[in-house]
Formats: sequence, structure tokens, C-alpha cells
Amino acid sequence: MDRPGRSPAVYFLSDYGTDDEFVGVVHTVLHRVAPTMPVIDLGHRVPPFDIAAGSAMLVRCGPYLGSGVVLAVVDPGVGTGRRGVAVEVVGAGPRWLVGPDNGLLEPLAKTLGGARRVVDLRPGALQPRWWPAEPGGGTFDGRDLFAPAAAHLVVGVPASALGSDADPGSLVPLCTDGVLVEVRAGAGAIDVRVTWVDRFGNVQLGGGSTELDAIGLTEAATVSVAVLGPSVAIGSPISDRARRVEAFAALGAGELGLMVDSNGRLALVLREASAARRLKLGVGDIVRIGVTDEDIAG
Amino acid sequence: MDRPGRSPAVYFLSDYGTDDEFVGVVHTVLHRVAPTMPVIDLGHRVPPFDIAAGSAMLVRCGPYLGSGVVLAVVDPGVGTGRRGVAVEVVGAGPRWLVGPDNGLLEPLAKTLGGARRVVDLRPGALQPRWWPAEPGGGTFDGRDLFAPAAAHLVVGVPASALGSDADPGSLVPLCTDGVLVEVRAGAGAIDVRVTWVDRFGNVQLGGGSTELDAIGLTEAATVSVAVLGPSVAIGSPISDRARRVEAFAALGAGELGLMVDSNGRLALVLREASAARRLKLGVGDIVRIGVTDEDIAG
Amino acid sequence: MDRPGRSPAVYFLSDYGTDDEFVGVVHTVLHRVAPTMPVIDLGHRVPPFDIAAGSAMLVRCGPYLGSGVVLAVVDPGVGTGRRGVAVEVVGAGPRWLVGPDNGLLEPLAKTLGGARRVVDLRPGALQPRWWPAEPGGGTFDGRDLFAPAAAHLVVGVPASALGSDADPGSLVPLCTDGVLVEVRAGAGAIDVRVTWVDRFGNVQLGGGSTELDAIGLTEAATVSVAVLGPSVAIGSPISDRARRVEAFAALGAGELGLMVDSNGRLALVLREASAARRLKLGVGDIVRIGVTDEDIAG
Repeated sequence: MDRPGRSPAVYFLSDYGTDDEFVGVVHTVLHRVAPTMPVIDLGHRVPPFDIAAGSAMLVRCGPYLGSGVVLAVVDPGVGTGRRGVAVEVVGAGPRWLVGPDNGLLEPLAKTLGGARRVVDLRPGALQPRWWPAEPGGGTFDGRDLFAPAAAHLVVGVPASALGSDADPGSLVPLCTDGVLVEVRAGAGAIDVRVTWVDRFGNVQLGGGSTELDAIGLTEAATVSVAVLGPSVAIGSPISDRARRVEAFAALGAGELGLMVDSNGRLALVLREASAARRLKLGVGDIVRIGVTDEDIAG
Repeated sequence: MDRPGRSPAVYFLSDYGTDDEFVGVVHTVLHRVAPTMPVIDLGHRVPPFDIAAGSAMLVRCGPYLGSGVVLAVVDPGVGTGRRGVAVEVVGAGPRWLVGPDNGLLEPLAKTLGGARRVVDLRPGALQPRWWPAEPGGGTFDGRDLFAPAAAHLVVGVPASALGSDADPGSLVPLCTDGVLVEVRAGAGAIDVRVTWVDRFGNVQLGGGSTELDAIGLTEAATVSVAVLGPSVAIGSPISDRARRVEAFAALGAGELGLMVDSNGRLALVLREASAARRLKLGVGDIVRIGVTDEDIAG
Repeated sequence: MDRPGRSPAVYFLSDYGTDDEFVGVVHTVLHRVAPTMPVIDLGHRVPPFDIAAGSAMLVRCGPYLGSGVVLAVVDPGVGTGRRGVAVEVVGAGPRWLVGPDNGLLEPLAKTLGGARRVVDLRPGALQPRWWPAEPGGGTFDGRDLFAPAAAHLVVGVPASALGSDADPGSLVPLCTDGVLVEVRAGAGAIDVRVTWVDRFGNVQLGGGSTELDAIGLTEAATVSVAVLGPSVAIGSPISDRARRVEAFAALGAGELGLMVDSNGRLALVLREASAARRLKLGVGDIVRIGVTDEDIAG
């Protein structure tokens, strides 16, 4: 079905968690429609209903995805009027993204070259013969709508069989609450939002190294780090110092580091310990990273 | 091995959790016996030893399973005299169910058309040549007994090679503690047991909509909801109101809903929030759903 | 690529957890290089940075692994000078082990017949054409170094293309803190370290049954069990009695058992309950198992 010379797969992400059978049932549906197609789980423990977190995971996966179809379901609006869509993108990598049109898919579509086509999925289109005669209510579109659509697309069924074309520019953008990065060059500092805390406690920030360069921070500078909230009580701000490094190896035990992480993003890190715990940071917190006396580049 | 025109798989469910290597080792055993056969994980975080929860997960998966073999292991009695069995069912979908005969498989067998054949698995039957010379003690039948049996069955080895036939009616039924549903038509209420709380806090109930219809509740009625225990302290019962709806979309923020869920079962739900937390409900609790003044159908 | 007559796979273990997309991204990289190769997840919830726990999981899987490549990543030293290696082993089962050279791989190599060849992996060797032009910093060698190496090896690329040969005896051994087993024959007791607590609360011990036999404990003896710490407060040692049994079935409700587990190791167990919780035991604790009056074999 896909660009020649590559082996397609379905790439599956959701907030279904791993306690229930949701992920497994979706796999069975994919297998029945596309039995020889590999399914790669990108992750299923997106916090429930957290569209922004799911979208960020997809974007971090983006550069590594091969050909095929992305199936992504973080769907607080299931059972409302929100559309289900299949989005054809123009870049290398996967050709179709399938899921709810609630902002989850739009950032990935952008990083994959942009949407060239958007198809409104029609419930029940191409319903398999074996589909249960009395299925449950409309609360599990991952199983009932998105998995069948993804599986049909990945085996080469034309998208026109799954629904009708919509305006390629109609995709709902991700709603982000407030400014993510604010560069305060005058004050020699940037305020930046925490976008992800990973399992190891590394704290990824919403801004890149460009902004730090702009305020004159040298590669090996020591910077000040102040947690501005909102999760920290006003009156007792946590402040610390971090050293800009290129690898964990450059850090001593207990020394806070500021480095470019494996996604090319700025991150606050400790060596073999949790920077998030040390700084009491969570997603959405704002951190001020500033020049210290010894920072000024010569 | 299976009904023609369909692609078999092994469908694997257990209470092994995901912290240890149990699931991975079973996959290696399946792969060595049936290397080209897909293995679909239905879920492995069944609460430890909770046969009823595992059985319910299997039943919810049932209508979506394709051909092949179900491998299910929730096995508090491993190392006791309980049988290991392979159960042939008569319906569409998977042909064999493999696991301990402790009630785990029986409800799924029933929903798949009933057991036509039960084979007592013989430990060590068809043991692969590569099997470790000094395996461990008899506490891991998922690896040592059930996975080899499932893998041999799915590649077409006759069941007679794995053990001896038993009475097809001999399958141990699921032991359920007490009455699941009690319809109190006289009082205009039903008492019903909580059978599942999913990751999103949706509360699935042991009774269907038939009972509510019987007591005269209209589709759009508002019902009273009272938590009778046992997990709530006597003297402070939680009571609330819920509206019968067809989709999350019909609910306002914070409004409790009563709807038919994706398995065709009644469930108490909130929109984008946990009804279980709101009502302090867990599996096994009894909920009374009753007629309110505005309920009486015209 | 592998020994004839068997179906290779990649066996993947890590401490990446299941909350983030780390495992999924590694799968996409494996799939792009080796699209038809099965990938079996041995487990990804090794405690963060816990090389000993990851190593123990690998060793427990060892006897069941088929042909192919083991990809194992527990890598606190990523971004430091530690080597990445591919280790060729001489036994049956997998031919190559790939991961950081920090002790993680060495015990598995030993149980698989020993290392016959060690190759220092060269970052960027055989980098695929599709690799992102601007990848992130050097903190994710699982994705950037080890997965490409494992995938190339499993499809038959010679190891010489991935790096240069090193001394086969140069593999870093697992660093274990202190004595694991101490047999105190004179006192009729052994002191032994807890090496693993599984999901069910079974407590695996660092010593086997040989030592107990040596101090004259019969098969069905009752032994004394005393928790010596370090996780128990001095002054209030927990002591108990356990009966040597061959199966859970032999235990009454609440009766502590000492048995050979599914890995051939001694374990303290309860029937359908957690021995770890009962004895307040965790990994690293020392347990003294001793002769009681009724123990002395006739």
C-alpha cells in the first residue's frame, strides 16, 4: 500500500493503559483485518484524556517512524460530535494518521510534512463480516472506528471507502494553554515550561538552546534555575544552579545539568537520579533559567 | 490448523504483571514452538490470583477474537491437584482455550458456543528437544505446561498428543460469591454489583438495561444511585443522581450518567472524570439504582 | 544469520518503563532495519539504573531463549566512557548479546557458555539512510546505538561492520555488593540474600538447596527463618518458621513455605499471598535459615 522499498506497520499509541484489555482488543481487530501486518506499540500509558501528552509522545517518535499508518487514540470527546479522521501526510515515514480530530494528530502531521488530505471517517464503513451483531455503545471508537480504518488503510484499501474528503486545512490544532516559551533577553533569563518528565526524572523543557544562546550563555556556563510554579507554593520558590553539559558523564554526583536531550530539546538532568524530584517539577511548571555572574561569555 | 480463510493467533492473558519477565519467557516458549504465529497480548495485569477479573476480561474480548488459541493463566492453584486443560469450543473465533481448570475459562467457553471437548493436559507431553535439562519446580505452568500446549495446538498438533480426553461437561464453573443482580421491582429499584472499574473510572455493573426497563425507567430518565457497600462504612451511604444517556456527549461537566457501555453493559460514568472515585466504588460493591419522582414513564 | 533449523528473534529487555515511548521507538528502529524479524519483549520495568536486577532477569530467561540476538539496556553510564558491546556466546540459544558493557550482559554470557568474541560498537556504524539528520544528544543509546547493532546482527550483517574486536575476556563483570551466600554449617544455619521479590510476593534467595542439604535439613523439615536486615530495624527482628515443600499445594493457608522455585532457586512462599509482605522482605535483605529441633534428619 505504501511507498516502495519499505515495510509498513501500524504504529499504535493510546491512553488505554495496561490494566484493562483495551489495547489487546484493538490488536485483535487489527489482526483480523490485516493479519500479516506488524503492529508496533508506541505507548499506552498516556495520562487519561491528556491530548497534549499523547501528541508530544507522537512528535518525539515522529523521526523514527517507518512507512505505514499511525493509530493514535486519546479521546476524551468519544461519543460527542468530534470527528474521526484519517490524515494523509506528505513526508517520508507513515502515510496515514488515524484518530480523533481533537489536536492529538495535528502536531505530528506538521512534523511529517503537513496534511495533504483529511478524510472524515464514517462509522461502520467497511465493517468486517465477523463484527459482533450486538456491539456495545459508542464509547470505544479505538476498537470500533479507528482500528478498522487503520487496518484497512495499511493493507491498501483506498481512503475513499472509509469516509468522505474534508478540507485538508480543517484539522483541529492542539490547544496549548498559554505561552510555552518566553525569552526575557533584557533580564538575561528565559522562562520556559516543563513539557515532559520521563521515567528517570529528566525534565524536558518547551524551549531549545537557541534562546539560551541568544542571551549569551556559553556552552559550559553555569546557569541559575528557579521554579516559578504553578505547582510550587508561592513564597518558597526552589532555586538551584545547573551546568550546561553535553553528556551525563560531565556531571558529578548530585550536580544538576542542563543539556540537549535525545530529542534535541533542553532538559534539566541529574546523573543517575531524578531532577524532577530534586526540583519538585511536574509538567506545566514554569522554570526560569538565567545568567549567573560567571555566565557572561567573553 | 484452523477454520479456513482466517489467520490464527495465540491470544494471551495472565495475572503475571509487567514488572517481571514472566510474560516475556512465555513468549519465548511460544516462539520456539510456533515461530511464525502471531501472539496477541490481551492483558497481563489481572489482579494477582483474581480468577473472576481475568474471566471477565476474557469474556469482554470474546466477540473480537479471531481463529487460533486462547492462552489464559490466572492460577492460584498451580502446584495443587487442579487440572490443566485444553477446551475446544464450537463457535466462530478461537478453537481452543488453554489454561488452568479453575473457572477462568468456563465463562468464555460458554460465550463462544460451549465446550465440545475437554482434554486433560499431561505435563511434559511433547516436551521440546531444547527444553532445559534442569527446569525449576512446578510453580510456573504458564511457561512449562500451558504455553507449550497452546503453541502445539495452534500449529496443528492434535490435542490427543497433549493429554487424554475428559468429560466435555467437566469444566469447573466460575465461582461467584453471591447474587450478582437482584431486581426489586416492587420497590422500583434494582440492586446490582460492580463488576469492573476501568482505567478511566467508568463503573461497569453486573446487570443490563433489561432490568431497568422492567421497572419502568424511560430512556432519558434520571435515576437515584445509592452505594450499599460493602466497601462503604455503614451509616454514611453515598447517594447521587444519574441520568440515562446514550453517549458521554449528553453529559454536562460533573453530571453522573448511566449508559450502555462498549460491552453492552450498564455503566455509571462521568464525562472525562472518574465515576468510581466520585462514588467511592470498587469491584464487588453493590449499587441500588432506583426510580425517582420524575422517572415514571408516561 | 543463525544456527540452522531455528527461527531467530530479537529479545529485548530494558529499564525504560512503560510510561514513555522509549520502548516503542526502539521497536520502530528494529523494524526498519529488520522488518520481518520478531521482537520479543522480555520486560521493560527493571527498576531504573538497576543493573543487577536486569542481569538477574536475563539469567532467569536464559534457558528459554532461542536463536537470535539479546538486546539489553540498563545503562546508567550512557554518555560516559563505558563501552557498548556485542558479545558472541558459544552455547545454544542466542548468538549475540548487545548492550552497555557495565555488568548487565556478563552473567547471561556466562550461563550461555561464555563469551567467544567481544566487539566494541562504533557509534554511527552502518547508520541507516533514513536516520534523522539532526538527532538528539547522546543520551539514548538504546535507540541510537544498540538497536541498530542488534537489528543488523540478527539479519546477518557481520559484526566486523559494527565495530572492532576487543579481548573476549574484557567483559565487565557484574558488581555485586557483598557476599550472597554464607553457609554456617557449624551453627546449623545459612545466611542468604534476597535476590528477587516477584509480583506475587514470592521471595527468591541467593542460595540453592545444596547448602540446606549440607546442614542436614531433610526434604520435609521445618526451618527457622530470621530476617537479619538491612531493611529491618535492629532490635525487632522478624522470625518465623517455614516448612520445606515441593509445591504450593502442600501449604495450608498462612503457612510459610520454603521451596525450589521455577528457576531452580530456593524461595520463601505463601499460598496465594505475599511472603515478602509477611516477612517485610525486600531485595538485598539477609535471611537466616536454620535448623529447628525437629529438623535433624534421622
